[in-house]
Amino acid sequence: MKPKSAMVVFQPSGRRGRVPLGVSIVEASRLLGVDIEAPCGEKQVCGKCKIRIELGTFQKLGLESKFEHAGPWQAGEEKHISGYEKKAGFRMGCVATVEGDLLIFVPEAARAGKQVVSKAPRHLDITLNPAVKQYSVQLEPPTLEDPVGNFERLCAALKNNHGLTSLSIDVNVLRGLQTILENGGWQATVSVWMDREIILVQPGTDANIFGMAIDVGTTTVAAYLCDLVSGKVIDTLSMMNPQVKYGEDVVSRISFHMENPDGLKRMSQDLVDGLNSLVSQALSTDYSRPAPGNGSMPEQPYRVQPQEIVDVSIVGNTAMHHILLQLDPTPLGVIPFTPAVHHSLDIKARDLGLIINPAARIFMLPIEAGFVGGDNVGVILAEKPHHQDPIQLIIDIGTNGELVLGNRERLISSSCATGPALEGAQIEFGMRAAPGAIERVVIDPETLDVDYKVINREAWKNYSTPTDMQAKGICGSGVLDAVAQLFIAGIVKKSGAFAKEQASNRFRIRPETGMKEFVLAWARETSIDKDIVITQQDIRHIQLAKASIYTGCKLMMRKMGVEKVDSVKIAGAFGSHVDCKLALAMGMFPDCPVENIRSVGNAAGDGCRAALLDRDRRLEADRIARQVEYLELTLEEDFQRQLMEAIHFPHMTDTFEHLADIVPRQVLNQGRNKVKNHSQED
Amino acid sequence: MKPKSAMVVFQPSGRRGRVPLGVSIVEASRLLGVDIEAPCGEKQVCGKCKIRIELGTFQKLGLESKFEHAGPWQAGEEKHISGYEKKAGFRMGCVATVEGDLLIFVPEAARAGKQVVSKAPRHLDITLNPAVKQYSVQLEPPTLEDPVGNFERLCAALKNNHGLTSLSIDVNVLRGLQTILENGGWQATVSVWMDREIILVQPGTDANIFGMAIDVGTTTVAAYLCDLVSGKVIDTLSMMNPQVKYGEDVVSRISFHMENPDGLKRMSQDLVDGLNSLVSQALSTDYSRPAPGNGSMPEQPYRVQPQEIVDVSIVGNTAMHHILLQLDPTPLGVIPFTPAVHHSLDIKARDLGLIINPAARIFMLPIEAGFVGGDNVGVILAEKPHHQDPIQLIIDIGTNGELVLGNRERLISSSCATGPALEGAQIEFGMRAAPGAIERVVIDPETLDVDYKVINREAWKNYSTPTDMQAKGICGSGVLDAVAQLFIAGIVKKSGAFAKEQASNRFRIRPETGMKEFVLAWARETSIDKDIVITQQDIRHIQLAKASIYTGCKLMMRKMGVEKVDSVKIAGAFGSHVDCKLALAMGMFPDCPVENIRSVGNAAGDGCRAALLDRDRRLEADRIARQVEYLELTLEEDFQRQLMEAIHFPHMTDTFEHLADIVPRQVLNQGRNKVKNHSQED
Repeated sequence: MKPKSAMVVFQPSGRRGRVPLGVSIVEASRLLGVDIEAPCGEKQVCGKCKIRIELGTFQKLGLESKFEHAGPWQAGEEKHISGYEKKAGFRMGCVATVEGDLLIFVPEAARAGKQVVSKAPRHLDITLNPAVKQYSVQLEPPTLEDPVGNFERLCAALKNNHGLTSLSIDVNVLRGLQTILENGGWQATVSVWMDREIILVQPGTDANIFGMAIDVGTTTVAAYLCDLVSGKVIDTLSMMNPQVKYGEDVVSRISFHMENPDGLKRMSQDLVDGLNSLVSQALSTDYSRPAPGNGSMPEQPYRVQPQEIVDVSIVGNTAMHHILLQLDPTPLGVIPFTPAVHHSLDIKARDLGLIINPAARIFMLPIEAGFVGGDNVGVILAEKPHHQDPIQLIIDIGTNGELVLGNRERLISSSCATGPALEGAQIEFGMRAAPGAIERVVIDPETLDVDYKVINREAWKNYSTPTDMQAKGICGSGVLDAVAQLFIAGIVKKSGAFAKEQASNRFRIRPETGMKEFVLAWARETSIDKDIVITQQDIRHIQLAKASIYTGCKLMMRKMGVEKVDSVKIAGAFGSHVDCKLALAMGMFPDCPVENIRSVGNAAGDGCRAALLDRDRRLEADRIARQVEYLELTLEEDFQRQLMEAIHFPHMTDTFEHLADIVPRQVLNQGRNKVKNHSQED
Repeated sequence: MKPKSAMVVFQPSGRRGRVPLGVSIVEASRLLGVDIEAPCGEKQVCGKCKIRIELGTFQKLGLESKFEHAGPWQAGEEKHISGYEKKAGFRMGCVATVEGDLLIFVPEAARAGKQVVSKAPRHLDITLNPAVKQYSVQLEPPTLEDPVGNFERLCAALKNNHGLTSLSIDVNVLRGLQTILENGGWQATVSVWMDREIILVQPGTDANIFGMAIDVGTTTVAAYLCDLVSGKVIDTLSMMNPQVKYGEDVVSRISFHMENPDGLKRMSQDLVDGLNSLVSQALSTDYSRPAPGNGSMPEQPYRVQPQEIVDVSIVGNTAMHHILLQLDPTPLGVIPFTPAVHHSLDIKARDLGLIINPAARIFMLPIEAGFVGGDNVGVILAEKPHHQDPIQLIIDIGTNGELVLGNRERLISSSCATGPALEGAQIEFGMRAAPGAIERVVIDPETLDVDYKVINREAWKNYSTPTDMQAKGICGSGVLDAVAQLFIAGIVKKSGAFAKEQASNRFRIRPETGMKEFVLAWARETSIDKDIVITQQDIRHIQLAKASIYTGCKLMMRKMGVEKVDSVKIAGAFGSHVDCKLALAMGMFPDCPVENIRSVGNAAGDGCRAALLDRDRRLEADRIARQVEYLELTLEEDFQRQLMEAIHFPHMTDTFEHLADIVPRQVLNQGRNKVKNHSQED
């Protein structure tokens, strides 16, 4: 008998569920809370809902044709889908229907709801000294008496007015030089990379140049568009890492490369395409800037031109770094975990395929060791533990968590596989930090009632009409809040299991699967018309993530020979900042006075921005990468035992003296007699 | 009434003529002595005879469809011609027929008969010190105790064993590094550019690297493939410059750019494609090299791999330089003739689209001024007038002739538009210096009988059975010989006109056009079954060419304030060396003792090779380019008068005291009484 529903999985969000056969893919996305963009109201007009049926996973599902389960191709689709795209599996989401199990990739352009990146980039304590600087010159046009070439003419002016010598020029710049000099009446603004190479000449004196600092995470990518003259951040952009479809963590990406001859190239190209989509997003945005003069005029709108983006800095863990550059990541996954290169690299934008100024260089921050890459170097550049006496522990939460511990005497780093749960992925109702995501959760320990806040709505649920909440899912910080609050309220035990006795009608067991779950938002409070729940499995994901972070911290402290740290900083690019108290409450890191725990936002991105805006930080980055000691956690012989012990909330053996104010005594004391018997699950 | 024959013009040779309608294009080429390659005997099997019907000129001819005059497309052609090529106008020469007037471009690959480049590259007086050098290293494989990355491991070995520091690496090299190191058992040969950047790593110790020195002429291109370890020339390759179809001289190329929005890009791409065809010709050739060891083993065959070509140096006049790099050549054609750049350039091979090692750099030799480019710098590098006391005059014969005059005190250069006649083009039976071309001509002043020699046949005509000669046409040196001999024999007068009274049956007037001509080879001595002649118009072309060279020399001497030069060197890449006496006899350059006139072969190419093999010559090239004074001939107010006076054989007013042994007195005295009345043509 033919089933009446089919399983649909949306990437990169990972949202999945059964939907009735015959519904359109856009409708299916709505049912599952994914929200594909369809501004024309599914009238097959706008072409925004273009999605891709994923062939690779299809084969795993045993399907022969990639369209078999998505209904037949319709003539109207040709309007928006090129022959090339059709071959790659693209369909219109409002036309293609669910006729069987489907794995669907929703490209960035088709995703409704912009991801919220840690807002208001922090002030950076740097001197503005970018790698690319502007110089204004006035030339004399050539004459028969002085017919010397344009490049030499330019060099002479740069030497006389700005003291620059031994300059070279990118051949692309040379190509347009004559026209630009003539158009500007022989007055020009010259952008020079590292006082060495001319990479842009603009006519006249009023010329913009921009740079981008890009933090390439395993799951998410954040980019800061900066004005290289003022040093200001003009825009913050983000997207899912398009490689998510090849695997959720670094190890599965490496496996994809090893199992597919063109895997590395595909993953690299997808990321480059993604970065180009971020760039074109910036290029199509209207920004404004102060009018020239005394400031009495209104701000002027302007758009960034591709050739004005003259510098890019990129941070990422070692796997992201290698895959982007198409460096074989295989050795990263096997002992002795050797990277192809540690040192920072300068790569021409055109060699990477970035569609910005082709003469611009991409500065790839250096790699420390193992999976600890430029992102951790960025964190250190931004937080400067190496310039201070107190021992800092900095935790950068991502799919691959990167940790650093130490002070000016010594720094140790390590990386732990937290998985994407803390970013809202792998969670049943998880979603990225976009409007409608539950980002904060409070559970009253007495009434067990739930209050929560969604992104882009100021009022909490308890101060709103329930139907106004329009919750869609839970983002990373919301999941962390929810799990911590469940534990504090005693609904979930130290072991992570739901307590046997439950007083709340929000707790229930799903009949078909036996899965225990707790309702955060009732269907009427949502836009997806179903209860948003945290499941036992969601809690397990969070437990594993926090245990792996805790274990990393502890093993680093042991290596350094310290019993405690002076401060803890939690870094991470996406969503609201983590509630540090709750993170401590669930035992994500070793005990520390609550007042010394801080959330520092996207520190990796901040460090990346520092390298973009101050060339001296690039040198410092290479020094840091050479000096930080790396601890490979998985090679520590008691790693597995330590990890198992850290699964508990907050931790099986730690005292956590600073928790008394956060977690009720009876919750903390729960199961205390079982400490020596930790392998037994109650 | 429909005509029974059609005009067919073959490019790049310029050979043209009427052929019967209905013959295949291969047959037409045979009738006109062009010889398209058709090894399968026109059985439509080999695909070698692929030619292109030129659309642009078609439109000039008033044709609507590019196939209309070449017969309908045949199904069999698809086997060898891609859809893309078909669109570009390609046809199979053995299938397409002549059904009307046609302009046909014969690609290098379809041309039978390899052009003869000045053989046996001369010994260069240089220290072998190439920009790219090989270093052998033995690395320790990484271990858990020493897991440092491959690049850093390589750098450490290069520092410890060879003293190299501050190295960078091309990202392409980084991509293959792990595999190469493993395959070589961690022993590797590393190629480093300018002791700065790693551009190739090869496994083991037995590794070749090669470089190419390329002389890009307006009409012809010559390339030397060199072993960068021994410094030896492995092969000499050549082709017509594919840009010939856009115009025969630099001025018409610049016009093509100015009249066509994509003209510059097309000309550049065509040349790059051409250079790539030279490269692939080298890659598919079996070379041999000494076996390793004591030399008792036979030589080993080997083929060059693309990645082994790690360096390229290129010389060319300013227009060739600019067009290749897609630098706007417009300013070169208008006062004050400003180039985009003088300084030498290092450009990544991949940025130019050269299919060699993508990390290799192309060294573009610097430009002097006006049209005098890297080719003249190359000539100076090779001949070193700036290191000597005697005043040398060096004449580089090409479509654009480049002249340099001087000694260690002072050097002056200039360029003159000689046109392609001296390279065998624009001449009715002109052809490139390939087998079958008449390269030497002697006319007996008494009997007026002609003796000649063809390329690739040792015996002269007078010592051969006439039907064995199989002459096909006349190459540059043959044309020069023939015209000089016609003059010396009194057949052609000092004015360049055929004398009124002619004793030889080889002289005749073509009835249909009234054109006077002189038969060099009777039809039975040829492979094209028609008399090979020198026409009055051919003589005019040679007169103009030699006059423009003579005028350049004289104006330079005037600027320098010298009455005579100590020596004259004639440079040129193609065909047999010019007979210096005959060149003097026709007045190609000012008077000079015959024993001090030498032919020096492809000096520009030799200088280019010096820059390839010795990095110090690159610095010297930039010094030379800065120091040579440039004389723009066309701006000299009496240039036109000087040019007109130089039209005569040998020259209207010069005494030419050294000519007595070469040119009979009565020939030299001819018209002496008319010296003051030169505007009158007899």
